[in-house]
Formats: sequence, C-alpha cells, structure tokens
Amino acid sequence: MAMLYDERVDGALPTVDRALLIQSLRDALPDLQLLCRDEDLKPYECDGLAAYRTVPLLVVLPERVDQVQVVLQICHRLTVPVVARGAGTGLSGGAMPLAKGVLLVMARLNRILEVSPQGRFARVQPGVRNLSISQAAAPYGLYYAPDPSSQIACTIGGNVAENAGGVHCLKYGLTVHNILKLEVLTVAGERLTLGSDALDSPGFDLLALFTGSEGMLGIVTEVTVRLLPKPPVARVLLASFDRVEDAARSVAHIIAAGIIPGGLEMMDNLAIRAAEDFIHAGYPVEAAAILLCELDGVEADVQEDCEQVAALFTQAGACEVRLACNEAQRARFWAGRKNAFPAVGRLSPDYYCMDGTIPRRELPYVLVRISEMAREHGLRVANVFHAGDGNMHPLILFDANRPGELERAESLGGKILELCVAVGGSITGEHGVGREKINQMCAQFTHDELRVFHAVKAAFDPQGLLNPGKNIPTLHRCAEFGALHVHHGQLPFPALERF
Amino acid sequence: MAMLYDERVDGALPTVDRALLIQSLRDALPDLQLLCRDEDLKPYECDGLAAYRTVPLLVVLPERVDQVQVVLQICHRLTVPVVARGAGTGLSGGAMPLAKGVLLVMARLNRILEVSPQGRFARVQPGVRNLSISQAAAPYGLYYAPDPSSQIACTIGGNVAENAGGVHCLKYGLTVHNILKLEVLTVAGERLTLGSDALDSPGFDLLALFTGSEGMLGIVTEVTVRLLPKPPVARVLLASFDRVEDAARSVAHIIAAGIIPGGLEMMDNLAIRAAEDFIHAGYPVEAAAILLCELDGVEADVQEDCEQVAALFTQAGACEVRLACNEAQRARFWAGRKNAFPAVGRLSPDYYCMDGTIPRRELPYVLVRISEMAREHGLRVANVFHAGDGNMHPLILFDANRPGELERAESLGGKILELCVAVGGSITGEHGVGREKINQMCAQFTHDELRVFHAVKAAFDPQGLLNPGKNIPTLHRCAEFGALHVHHGQLPFPALERF
Repeated sequence: MAMLYDERVDGALPTVDRALLIQSLRDALPDLQLLCRDEDLKPYECDGLAAYRTVPLLVVLPERVDQVQVVLQICHRLTVPVVARGAGTGLSGGAMPLAKGVLLVMARLNRILEVSPQGRFARVQPGVRNLSISQAAAPYGLYYAPDPSSQIACTIGGNVAENAGGVHCLKYGLTVHNILKLEVLTVAGERLTLGSDALDSPGFDLLALFTGSEGMLGIVTEVTVRLLPKPPVARVLLASFDRVEDAARSVAHIIAAGIIPGGLEMMDNLAIRAAEDFIHAGYPVEAAAILLCELDGVEADVQEDCEQVAALFTQAGACEVRLACNEAQRARFWAGRKNAFPAVGRLSPDYYCMDGTIPRRELPYVLVRISEMAREHGLRVANVFHAGDGNMHPLILFDANRPGELERAESLGGKILELCVAVGGSITGEHGVGREKINQMCAQFTHDELRVFHAVKAAFDPQGLLNPGKNIPTLHRCAEFGALHVHHGQLPFPALERF
Repeated sequence: MAMLYDERVDGALPTVDRALLIQSLRDALPDLQLLCRDEDLKPYECDGLAAYRTVPLLVVLPERVDQVQVVLQICHRLTVPVVARGAGTGLSGGAMPLAKGVLLVMARLNRILEVSPQGRFARVQPGVRNLSISQAAAPYGLYYAPDPSSQIACTIGGNVAENAGGVHCLKYGLTVHNILKLEVLTVAGERLTLGSDALDSPGFDLLALFTGSEGMLGIVTEVTVRLLPKPPVARVLLASFDRVEDAARSVAHIIAAGIIPGGLEMMDNLAIRAAEDFIHAGYPVEAAAILLCELDGVEADVQEDCEQVAALFTQAGACEVRLACNEAQRARFWAGRKNAFPAVGRLSPDYYCMDGTIPRRELPYVLVRISEMAREHGLRVANVFHAGDGNMHPLILFDANRPGELERAESLGGKILELCVAVGGSITGEHGVGREKINQMCAQFTHDELRVFHAVKAAFDPQGLLNPGKNIPTLHRCAEFGALHVHHGQLPFPALERF
C-alpha cells in the first residue's frame, strides 16, 4: 500500500539537537536501552496503520517507571516531542513516530503487580498484554472484559490511550468503563494519580478525560483494571437474512426488547463468502447478511433470552436461525467472524478498514448508502462489524497498484465517515482518531468544540510536546480541509498552530 | 445550625455594577424573570447544605435556552460570576450563591423533549426532575437508573453537575455511566455538544469531564440519558449481625462471589433503633448492624443469588437472615432505610451528614475507627450507608446550641474524611465537593494534581466566572489549610488565586 505520510507535522516542529539529546539520555540513564542506528529504527516506522510511516529520531525502551520519568524530564528540558507506543497494534496511526521526536516504547514495563480476587481488580504496568490480565485472573474465575481483536498482542497502556473496545463492549463497556485508577506522568515528568480505589473520585473526572486521549495528555505508568466474574454459560445464535436491511432492523429490536447480548455481530454477503472459503465455518453463503448473537449469564437467563432472540429474528424476516448445539460449534461460528478480516484480505491486494459508529436505528439506511457510494466509486466494500453497538467496520477493497484506486478508496472512506457523522454518529468506535482520521475530526466538531479540545490539551501540555499531529486537528488544518467556520476571520490559539 | 459561611470567596471577587447588570439583562431579555428585591432573594440563600448561606446579587429564572445564552453573554461581558442551580437539593453547597454573582436557576427548563423506547434513551431539559424521567419511560417498561434519595425533587441538570448516585449505583453506575450526550453553553455562551448518539465519541472525553464538574466548566442545556428495562423480579434479604465488623466483612464476600446486588445497604445500631422507633419496619433493635440486600433480574437468577447471599451472610456470622415474603414486606424493609436520615434527625437537634467513599475491604477497620474517634470527640455517630460500593454516610449528632459542639462536629467530620483518604478512598461518593469539602480536597490531591485541575478549569473558563470558590481549592487555600507541598516556595497560577 502506498504511503500517505503527511509531512506538515514534522516540518513544523523545531529542529532537535540529536547528539545532545542522546548524550543527555546516556549520561542520566546509562542502563536505558536506546536505539539510534537506522537499521534499528526502521522496524518502528509505523504502527498497525502501515500506510503511514516515518522513521523516528530515536527509540527508547525503558524497563522502569523512574527511567520513563527521567526521559520525559530531559525531553521537556530540550523541547523534544515524545510519542508513546505500546505493542504498536493500533489501527489509526496513533503511535506513528515523528522524524523529530523520541518514540517511547512502554512494552517492557510488563509486570502484573497485583491481582485482588476480593477487590475484583488487577494492578498492572502499561506494557502488560490485554490477554495476560485475563490469564492472570482466570484462577479466580475472573477476567478483564474489553477484548480488542488484537488482544493477544496489544498492551493495556495502548488500550487506555485509544479507549479500546471489542466484541464484548456492547454489554461490558469500553476500556474507560473497566478501569479504576491510573498512575501517569505529565510531560514534565510529574507523577499524578487519576481515579481511586474507591467508587468515585472528587474533582474533575481526569481518569475518563485521560482514557482515549491518545498519548497527548501524559504517559500512563500503571493501570488498575476492574475484573469481572466469568459468565457460567454462553450460547451463540446464527441468523440468516435475504435482505441486509432486515438483519439491520432486527438489531434494534433485540436491544429495544431489553436484551443486551454479550456480542451481536453482523457480516454481509461478501464477508460471509470470504470467511466461508477461508475457514469453513458452515455459514450460509447465499445469505445477504448473517447475525451472530452471543448470550451469556446464568443458565435460566440465557435459555430465556435465546428463545426471545430467536423469535425476534424470525419476526424480522430471518430465513434461518441456528443455535450452536455445543462448544465446538459455538467456536466454529465465532472462528468465521474472528478471521473475517484476513479472509476478506484474500479477495483483494489491499483493503482499508474503516471504524465509524452510528445510532443503531440508522443501520439499515447507512448500509444501503454505503453500497450505493461503493458503486459510485467503482469499489467493493465488505461489512463485518459490531452491530449491537452500531460500530461499523466497512472494509474497502482496492488495488494500490492500479492508478487512482488508492485515492478512490481514501475518498470513499472519508465519505463513509462523514455519513456516520451526518446521521448522528461518530468517526470512530474503537480504533481512535490518530493520524488517520484527523481531517474527519473537522467534520465531527465545530470550531468552538475544537477550541475547547486545544485548551484542554494546553492545560496538560502547553508546548504541545506529547504526540503532536494526532487526535485533535489544528484549526488551521480544518480551515484548509474546508469544514471549519472561522470566527471573524481569526483563528484563535495561534501558539498551538505549529503542529 | 450556625452559619459556616466563608467570606473569602466573595471578598476576593471584583465589584459588580448591579444597576448596569440589571438594565443590560432587562434590555436584552424583556421577558426574562429576574428577582432583585431582598425578600425575593432570601429563599435562594442556600441549597440543601443550609449551614452555608449567602444572599445572591440577583436571581434569574430563564424558560428557554436562548435566554440562558444571552444571560451568559451579558455576564461574561460585564465580568459577573454565575452560579447555576437546579432544585437546590444538593448536600455539599455546590449551588450556594455569591453576594457578587448571578444565581442562574435552571429549574424552569423542564420539558421532556423525546423518549425513544427503541433507542432506549430520553432527551430532556436540565430542569426535568430525576423521577419524572422514569415516569415518562414507564409506559415502555423502561426507567432511568440513578436514584438519589432526593429524586422526587432534584433535577437531572443538578445530577449531571454533581455526578449523582443512589441506592442502585452499585449495579447500574453513577450519572456519568447513564448519560449519552450533553448540550452545554460555555461561559461565553457558545454552544457545545459533548458525547454523541453513538456508542463512543472521538477526541477527549469531555462528556465525562463535564459530569461532576459542579457548574465550573459550563451550563448544561440538554441531557440525553440512557434508559434501562425494569428488572422483572426484585427481592430483599435482611441480615442481622451481633458485630459490625462481621456485617462489613460479608459485604466484600458477596461482591467477591461475583454477585452484584441492585442495592446493598448497611445500618448500625443507633440508626436501626431510630428507624424502628419512627417507621416500625420490623427491624431487630438488638442487632449491632443490619444489611439490606436487594437482588434483581429474572426469576431464576434472583432465586439462585438469594440462596447464595443468604449462605454468605450465615458464614459471616449473621444471627438471622430474613427474606421479604411479599412486596408489602419488601417495601417495609426499605421504608426503614429510606427514612433513616429523618429518623436519626429525631435523636438530636442537629446532625451533619458525611459522604466519604472507601475500598470495601476497609469497611471493618474504618467503622471501628469512626466509633473510636466519635468517643474521643464526645459525640454520637449513626451509620446508614451504601455498603456495597463503600460509600459511607456517617451522621454526626450534635447540638449547635451547646457551646463548642458545632466545632467538634466539624472537626470529627474532617477527620473522618481524612481517614477515608488515608485508606485509599475519597472525600465524596455522591454528594460532591461544593463549598463543604473544599479544604479536604487539599488532603485528597497533591500540588501537581490540583495544578492540573486549575489548568483544566482555565481551559473552559479563564476568568474563573463559573461557580468560583467551589469544588477545586486554590493552592493558596491548601497552603493555609496546611496540606499542600509548596514547590520552591512558589505558588503557581497566581492569576487563579483570587477566588
């Protein structure tokens, strides 16, 4: 896939005295691992959004919190930007490095500090992998609920930075709903505690503000997560539909009936065929759409919900409803969904994974509009997504080697996100804004709203040293993008315009 | 009860040209109701924390959002502080007026704009009463979960300002977990939309930041709340204990077993006797403590949980466990708890209601320490509280007419809150900081943490016009209070020191 790197951010940053920076770090932290040779830096040039790449100025790999603190203090003193990174699995370029900035890799701070079955929490370092937390809690019958597809690799620190979701977030919430306390370092290396071990914390809710802030407000050094008891029973229903709109409509009916499934996933025909060819999950390849609905809880509860959901599917026009009769079949139903992205990847040299969120009631309309827009752009789109919470993942298929296809894919992607905003939704559900969706933020928010974002950013990081160029677009960028209303011909906050 | 008003806040504010302000408001908004005569202002001199009183400069009672916007624009232009107020039921003095500020009463913006059973949300104006939302949703089998004791009177706008809780917040969360979107006005009258109709919103989580910010960041003009289906079955268990510590310990055991009760409330002997004398709920007056545990959900689920909770109570040393055999008895069990505050009020001329939150595991220790400290202060304390989420409400009994008792009660209250902080808890669970707990904030947070609060405040309201003197103490105040570490002999943010 071609490179989409936008040179403006690095271009606008002040020049760094690289030799002085390296010397200062080595003097202060002789045992800090520091990468500065080209061949060592190259592997860090992108995160999970490989279309955007930059070789970082320097990579540091601290193993202790006090090292992180000193790195921040030195960078602050020398006015060097810092981009934090966990495992680098993010899909929106939130951890994309800067040619004039330090890449602060937090993956080696990977100790589980405490698992409290009675308090139902775990206290971990930011480099701990998402799945490791559930594994450490398993002996007590507990687990950590948010489960991004990358959970085997992604770190909890990255999850906090992006407010990560997953298949189960409809019922169990996003990262922000499953953390209790954060230890963080400010850009100047000051330690702050956000949240508390108790239910609530007074003052402003900085814990929630920090979660999803994409490394722009500070660096997470410790996370206390909530643990939940594993549901004793989980069952999966698979419903097939001849019309995509009927499938979409039944999603709203289930929620309106007061049932919150553990997962409620939708796949359209292109995705079904791709998954079936790849995994042989037993999916109905003629169906226009399928829904996978997992119900979990205690036996009687799940039993009753299964009956009710099956009835709602039938009423909505499902031509077939199947209940996984055992654990093996349940796993097979899910295997198709979980491998849908790589399966779709086999259909086309390249694909572009979108991440818009819409109110559930708009699902039928938005799905129809996406297929119309895809036709207009001469491109195919496969839909595989978290239907229950309206979090769509249209996969735009294209071939970057054919002239103009990448640009058409980008244009279609932008239009899909703007459609999500137009129906009352948002440009991201769980992948974050990062570098990728910075322009669409101008469509999502008004001038006044963006101004408040910048003021909040400045409250934590007045010089704009933490992850500049991500998440919150400058008002200047939005003016160029054409979606911003400029007040009285003046752009406020000129000091913030440089990134 | 004697007046505890602290003159420093009003004293430090700039003088306002009252006649010019009134004329400006009358010219711009001829149909705005405006109170300025002493006898009209007197009823607004305090909120639910009647110990703190000030007659406001002016009261305005807008009926439309555009009126609120113009009021804010005029106050901003004339540099006049604004304190917003809903029904005035708050218990921490968050809506206490200023002698040099406008009191902006939002109670007349009380229309329910939309109830969507399919989308499971309601869109309401800020002056709508908490209980009215559930009443409007009842025809659809839905309700709004957070239920502060004042829910018959308190407004949703005030609930957002204080991030209100209630008996059911253990299972269903605080206000912040039950709202989807806010329309707000900034101090300068700009309209912002925080959150969205979709699951998530990109950028910083300003919806959560705003919730609980006690009117210091802006004025809420519309709230979209989440509606939940009413649980089909609810049952209540009453367990009696000979030792307070055993009751406290069993709370942690229930949660550790993976059961989340709809409510889990504790009362100690003094509270039990007071409630029984007043309501005749059938409580065991010899018990050292009782626990009321409500379990809700589907029949089979509730049945199973009731059996397990009863067994856990017995294991923890309960001398008796009763299950309400019908709805009438269930209502009677709750009537004692719900009237416990007024019942305790009959024991003593005055009482002071505290609101600290602690980790559940610390309940046994903290209850013992509170009774020791009460003895040392020569005062009685009754405990009635949300045990499940560690949110304590010690009621300190005293007689303000006896010299020195008010001061002893205040001193004991402060020590109880500091104990909560010391065991890892916080100085408020659901009543907010307001004017009341501004000094204890200095014990809760470090210098660096408070500095970040002030910077965030300045991002929204650089002149400090919105509700000055509440929620976030100045660093100067903390230095006086003696709980702050001053960096290099310098207090940062001198511009913010004036309130």
